Amino acid sequence: MKFKTQDIAGMLGGTVEGDANAEIWTLCKIEEGTPGGISFLANPKYTHYIYDTQATAVVVSNEFTPEHPIPTTLIRVKDPYLAFASLLEAYGKMQQQSLQGVSSLAFVSPTATMGDGCYVGEFAVIADGAKIGKNVKIFPQTYVGNGATVGDDTILYAGVKIYGGMSIGNRCILHSGCVVGADGFGFAPKPDGTWDKIPQIGNVVVEDDVEIGANTCIDRSTMGSTVVHKNAKIDNLCQVAHNVVIGNNTAMASQSGVAGSSKIGSNCILAGQVGIVGHIEVGDRVTIAAQSGVTNDVPSDSVVLGSPATDARKQKRNMVIMRNLDKIEARIRELEKKLK
Amino acid sequence: MKFKTQDIAGMLGGTVEGDANAEIWTLCKIEEGTPGGISFLANPKYTHYIYDTQATAVVVSNEFTPEHPIPTTLIRVKDPYLAFASLLEAYGKMQQQSLQGVSSLAFVSPTATMGDGCYVGEFAVIADGAKIGKNVKIFPQTYVGNGATVGDDTILYAGVKIYGGMSIGNRCILHSGCVVGADGFGFAPKPDGTWDKIPQIGNVVVEDDVEIGANTCIDRSTMGSTVVHKNAKIDNLCQVAHNVVIGNNTAMASQSGVAGSSKIGSNCILAGQVGIVGHIEVGDRVTIAAQSGVTNDVPSDSVVLGSPATDARKQKRNMVIMRNLDKIEARIRELEKKLK
Amino acid sequence: MKFKTQDIAGMLGGTVEGDANAEIWTLCKIEEGTPGGISFLANPKYTHYIYDTQATAVVVSNEFTPEHPIPTTLIRVKDPYLAFASLLEAYGKMQQQSLQGVSSLAFVSPTATMGDGCYVGEFAVIADGAKIGKNVKIFPQTYVGNGATVGDDTILYAGVKIYGGMSIGNRCILHSGCVVGADGFGFAPKPDGTWDKIPQIGNVVVEDDVEIGANTCIDRSTMGSTVVHKNAKIDNLCQVAHNVVIGNNTAMASQSGVAGSSKIGSNCILAGQVGIVGHIEVGDRVTIAAQSGVTNDVPSDSVVLGSPATDARKQKRNMVIMRNLDKIEARIRELEKKLK
Repeated sequence: MKFKTQDIAGMLGGTVEGDANAEIWTLCKIEEGTPGGISFLANPKYTHYIYDTQATAVVVSNEFTPEHPIPTTLIRVKDPYLAFASLLEAYGKMQQQSLQGVSSLAFVSPTATMGDGCYVGEFAVIADGAKIGKNVKIFPQTYVGNGATVGDDTILYAGVKIYGGMSIGNRCILHSGCVVGADGFGFAPKPDGTWDKIPQIGNVVVEDDVEIGANTCIDRSTMGSTVVHKNAKIDNLCQVAHNVVIGNNTAMASQSGVAGSSKIGSNCILAGQVGIVGHIEVGDRVTIAAQSGVTNDVPSDSVVLGSPATDARKQKRNMVIMRNLDKIEARIRELEKKLK
Repeated sequence: MKFKTQDIAGMLGGTVEGDANAEIWTLCKIEEGTPGGISFLANPKYTHYIYDTQATAVVVSNEFTPEHPIPTTLIRVKDPYLAFASLLEAYGKMQQQSLQGVSSLAFVSPTATMGDGCYVGEFAVIADGAKIGKNVKIFPQTYVGNGATVGDDTILYAGVKIYGGMSIGNRCILHSGCVVGADGFGFAPKPDGTWDKIPQIGNVVVEDDVEIGANTCIDRSTMGSTVVHKNAKIDNLCQVAHNVVIGNNTAMASQSGVAGSSKIGSNCILAGQVGIVGHIEVGDRVTIAAQSGVTNDVPSDSVVLGSPATDARKQKRNMVIMRNLDKIEARIRELEKKLK
Repeated sequence: MKFKTQDIAGMLGGTVEGDANAEIWTLCKIEEGTPGGISFLANPKYTHYIYDTQATAVVVSNEFTPEHPIPTTLIRVKDPYLAFASLLEAYGKMQQQSLQGVSSLAFVSPTATMGDGCYVGEFAVIADGAKIGKNVKIFPQTYVGNGATVGDDTILYAGVKIYGGMSIGNRCILHSGCVVGADGFGFAPKPDGTWDKIPQIGNVVVEDDVEIGANTCIDRSTMGSTVVHKNAKIDNLCQVAHNVVIGNNTAMASQSGVAGSSKIGSNCILAGQVGIVGHIEVGDRVTIAAQSGVTNDVPSDSVVLGSPATDARKQKRNMVIMRNLDKIEARIRELEKKLK
């Protein structure tokens, strides 16, 4: 879809300086501007790019005063960053809204139900008794198992797998290859060294406005529910084990894992590759540094670091000493010499 | 499916106290009891929940003596925990057994063979020459490549990918998104800094009673076989590289990885996010703590911890000192002052 | 397909000693030889296996002089290792070349374009406007989204997911379950503790001769491109976040992750489970040891180790001291005693 610069200026409540009929069909960075693209200039550090950008138009501040001639069309607004962010959002929504209708190559069970405005791509499976809300976008090759529910306006990208009986909220985004509802890793040792599988018959409840990254796994609980509360954001390749609870607004960066039955509070931040052992409780507003290994309960409002993780300030001091352990050793040697 | 409490009591060899005709259709925790649910009470710590649980029935010990009136129906048995575990197992099996028949939307090559009682879901692919045993449950969108074999009673959940020529045993469970047989990561450096791919033409042999978690990867060997021996249990998002051997009964928790050609013995436990370098040998009955990095051979019956991993007891002592390195430094400073 | 030993000798420019009509249909290690298999002997350590190998033929050096009778047919060549490597390569290519044609069970959009010699397996989806080069092998259940491009001679194994608008080069190999183009993990915190999703509208550019492992994730950029340069090799279960750049020839072992906007130079080696924080730069020819956590820029030609990662030689000395921290503590205690 193409827009004229004057249409975009209208959307943004701005004014055009240059070619009001120039056509725009994409968004770009000012330093990587392309014909047909619109960019923005908010940070003065990037000002020099505007004099030779290939972008067709650039959103700038009303106050911006060029020092050289500018080849591109300008759209002047009050706050270029906010204006561009709203363009980004509109662009993203536009791309999703065009998806409509159920492909004749999908399989939708006659006992499944589906709201209006849904898209179901080729080779997707909506199994018996599944309940799909309104405006749900289900990309090709996605699987929604028996009796699973998916709320309104949720997007399931290609190849998402949702086991039977799982529950996904409204306005969620699940990326390709994520798996919701595989069995928790529960086995009881037998006297002969083999294992008895502990049946995992609970489910997963993903509440509203949750995003789940590509190839992330959220296991069903043994009984009861594994829960991801509202607005939690989980990155790619994360592991959320059985009976875990992830609090509201908590963000979990890539390759982090939470072992069975642990509870993470709300508004926490887990940086990348964090590990959290089973059966512990992490409070609210806790920040856990990358690659940390959390082995004990963590009180609310803490910042922890290290493996095993402890108070970040203390740990950072220790790390400085650790990095210079050879000097510690040298000082001891010196003392030993003197004492002789 | 619904059952009456008296039927369940019959299965468990127990006696009903209360409504023998109450209907049960799910299992639940006593603290999260729901109408239609059956729960159990084994741990005295949970006794107080029985007086106001919403569960329709609770399995209790023959010896249990309530201190208050109880709203729910009781099923009295000798060992409530064992009784409930058998219910869990029966429930799990019931859910699988209903799956039967080959979907008309699946692709089964005319040169593939398949035993009786199999289920093949929509958009699954059973490629040329594949051999599928009896009672195998193949969920939608699963891929079994050319000439691969899958043993009796094995379950392949939605979206499992098995490359051509791989071999999966009897009674295995493979969860969604796991990949068996991708190429090992083998490249020979060329003088110009680019890489020559070393062809990976071996296979993967997964023996009987193995469980493989969601999105776990087991690579084919360069030549010969990558082997996962009987009864090994591998959690989600694990990496088993080319030519690795995983011993009988070994359990590998989520996000752990074993690099090329390493051999892990039998009855080992790898906790979460463990890494094992290539070309080493880990003995039998070895326990490796979470996030450890194993860089050398480990003798049988060891417990190791840390990165690089060493004897866990020694490492734990070191960790205590490390956590208080600032005190070490302070003591040295004190000594230096005194010596002046 | 079967070959006679004399045909193989012809290919290798070698001579047959034994049964020139023996049939060969696979390749094997000398210590795991099987009937119908051909193996090689290059390392004298393995010489003893030749006297009882089950392999039908073994490639040996022109100079090889047996000390005992040999049951198997020999093919004598100048360099057995190189000869065998060329057999391996031919075998690998042969297996791919037989794949031809578009399955009637695949979905190829009428607006997609495709070169000659392509294979498209069952239930694959080539969406609107996608551009597929020549001789591309697209295995079953793979997804190539709207307007994505895939270069000549590339292989997409079963279940690969390529989001719309992404670009894959020539001669690439993408293994099952890898995801190219999921949204970068970008959210702006709101005053009430919830998150605003930052739309991710950039793309991923994977250049020529790149290999991407099973279940690896490469996220699209916020704007502009996430780039994997020529000849980079990425193992299974890796994370490449939005706006990351991976240099030419860089190899990244399993379960490693690079956070947003970081740039990795060319000819680097990231061992397994490495983590790299966002917004840093790693130079060329850098080696990063397994499980390291890189938190700062790394100059070219460095070798780093540890979490946080520092110069490997220094870190190794520190690790030796660390492993013996109890002795450090004992020496301080001793000094304290003496000073009293």
